[in-house]
Amino acid sequence: MNVPLPERGFTDDEFAARTQRCQEAMAAADIAALLVCTEPEVRYFTGFHTPFWQSPTRPWFTVVPAAGKPIAVIPSIGGASMRATWIDDVRTWSSPQPDDDGVTLLVECLREVAGADGRIGLPMGPETHVRMPLRDFDRVRAEVGDFIDATDIIVGLRTIKSEAEIAKHQHICGLVSNAFDELPNLLSVGMTEREAFAAFRGEILRQGADDVPYLVGATGPGGIDDIIRQPSDRTIGDGDLLIFDTGSTFDGYFSDFDRNFAFSHADDDAFDAYRAVWEATEAGLAAVRPGATTTEVFTAMNDVLKANGSLGNDVGRMGHGLGMQVTEWPSHTANDDTVIEENMVLTLEPGLLWAPGKAMVHEENIVVRADGAELLSRRAAPEMVVI
Amino acid sequence: MNVPLPERGFTDDEFAARTQRCQEAMAAADIAALLVCTEPEVRYFTGFHTPFWQSPTRPWFTVVPAAGKPIAVIPSIGGASMRATWIDDVRTWSSPQPDDDGVTLLVECLREVAGADGRIGLPMGPETHVRMPLRDFDRVRAEVGDFIDATDIIVGLRTIKSEAEIAKHQHICGLVSNAFDELPNLLSVGMTEREAFAAFRGEILRQGADDVPYLVGATGPGGIDDIIRQPSDRTIGDGDLLIFDTGSTFDGYFSDFDRNFAFSHADDDAFDAYRAVWEATEAGLAAVRPGATTTEVFTAMNDVLKANGSLGNDVGRMGHGLGMQVTEWPSHTANDDTVIEENMVLTLEPGLLWAPGKAMVHEENIVVRADGAELLSRRAAPEMVVI
Repeated sequence: MNVPLPERGFTDDEFAARTQRCQEAMAAADIAALLVCTEPEVRYFTGFHTPFWQSPTRPWFTVVPAAGKPIAVIPSIGGASMRATWIDDVRTWSSPQPDDDGVTLLVECLREVAGADGRIGLPMGPETHVRMPLRDFDRVRAEVGDFIDATDIIVGLRTIKSEAEIAKHQHICGLVSNAFDELPNLLSVGMTEREAFAAFRGEILRQGADDVPYLVGATGPGGIDDIIRQPSDRTIGDGDLLIFDTGSTFDGYFSDFDRNFAFSHADDDAFDAYRAVWEATEAGLAAVRPGATTTEVFTAMNDVLKANGSLGNDVGRMGHGLGMQVTEWPSHTANDDTVIEENMVLTLEPGLLWAPGKAMVHEENIVVRADGAELLSRRAAPEMVVI
Repeated sequence: MNVPLPERGFTDDEFAARTQRCQEAMAAADIAALLVCTEPEVRYFTGFHTPFWQSPTRPWFTVVPAAGKPIAVIPSIGGASMRATWIDDVRTWSSPQPDDDGVTLLVECLREVAGADGRIGLPMGPETHVRMPLRDFDRVRAEVGDFIDATDIIVGLRTIKSEAEIAKHQHICGLVSNAFDELPNLLSVGMTEREAFAAFRGEILRQGADDVPYLVGATGPGGIDDIIRQPSDRTIGDGDLLIFDTGSTFDGYFSDFDRNFAFSHADDDAFDAYRAVWEATEAGLAAVRPGATTTEVFTAMNDVLKANGSLGNDVGRMGHGLGMQVTEWPSHTANDDTVIEENMVLTLEPGLLWAPGKAMVHEENIVVRADGAELLSRRAAPEMVVI
């Protein structure tokens, strides 16, 4: 199926709008400077996009002031790339330099931006971490004083997507839907799990994805006990079930959905379990609208699973936010209670144990519109497909 | 070229040996419990290997006691996978649970393992970070007291590879060497950078790599200004230079080397710059031996670059360790001074600015043997290849 190709990158206006929304939230929280140091946050404010973050060697910082553009405080190896973004103020040091790997430069910048009395924000809550050595962070904290937890500001910004961001999600979800549709032509009994993974990864790339950073799955005779595994040399046999779950990317934005298949045949109980998670997803789709809560969406899905004899599951939630990371805030859980807003991009991911050691998890991707859920992934078949 | 396929995974004996080496170092440092919470460290001690770490939602912990096997303190979604490793003691909680996302379970485990007076180690130094929300980490620190910096213990363990680890490096470096050798057949003037990246990524996977997590590169007329870029829609033209630098993986172990090409023709200065970094690499290869220092290796390479009129570079080092991450300790810098030991896996990566805005970086991968450097990557041609 043809999937329209959106523009890559973002306009300077989009970065300016993100920054302004951030600065309004900072003003409301009496925060004079916001420090971020993780890949999605730095990219969100600057547009700096590189897999270089996989190298743990160097810290990277961005400081959002009360007014004006963000300031990048980064290793010189990233200077040329950062200067090519909309950012004007790029401060670099030659890294690695273990004795002072940006600490002095960062402290100077924070003091300059926050002034003598200004409070400095930093995301310190759920799903965040400080990506720099603890020893160095303790030095920064000793110099500039305690940080204010700015998790809510970041969550408020990143969970509501722009149309440009949504277009990237639509694109990658369309490509991965195409690749899943091809699977019955690519897989067969007698292949190993490893061959099946390679065939699927290759197909997603052939469809036009930039990368397949997240690919997990498993096969098992009549059912699957573990849905986050890497492939083994196990040979797929008649009567096996297969799950593939992939987070693939286009221009730095993720899809994250799965599909389940049977080879040759499956027990009625397996078809019933598939039908249960498919119907739970229907219930989730119906429950999603601006103003509903993640807990209501969870309950809608969980009620269907309970009515179908679920033995529970180990996943801990039934879906989550989606964006520059394969999972983001919020979570559909029994007590998350996040109010769902227009233009959130979410997954619905009901799962159940339908027999001891046999799990079935289904997942779709949606964007929240004024009138409810709009699918990003192409809806799975209501009956499990047999290959 | 045929590349022998090593065994996947490791024997329980290998994990036991890693743990024993760690416990000897812990005893010497008077550390009763060691806490790690990042992917490579948890994998190093347990064998737990999943891309699930890309999800920032859940923290994962491993505690190494003074004697006996490590203990996993992890979200229940990973329980089945962790129980399939050599680890016996797997403690789980249902995550996400923002109010207490493993904090209580981790504190209990640390107290139990360290006892009333035992010191608790945690990597806090260069190239490490604490992968859990700062707010939660501060709670753990308030409960168990200050941690002792255990960076040196982890560095001492991870920088010295076993033969089983080295075999994985040999394999992926061989596959990527094959893929680089194919490039003149895959690339041509008139392709876009994006098409060239996709062709190279596809070829690496076709050769048998598990994944290509790190792929950067650039093209430019007569030279390249930035070596960590993502591809653009720029069309490759006659007289362009191209650099590709990839960290590809086999069974969780990385290659990390690059190659430079010219299309149709290049200036003499560009050929000279290529020759300078190639000869600097020769000097690095000759300088590597057990007992030499990273600073001596840096100086050997840097002297060649200076003699060839280098205007410096922005990279900050000329190579680094390689392993479960695309870059690891140590770094070849002017003052790193790490003593090189047998079975370290290293990159040699001399780079120079040969004209304003024109960079040339070359990279090879080696393992340190008793008598010096053994190449893992197939040595680049001494003259820049013209496509």
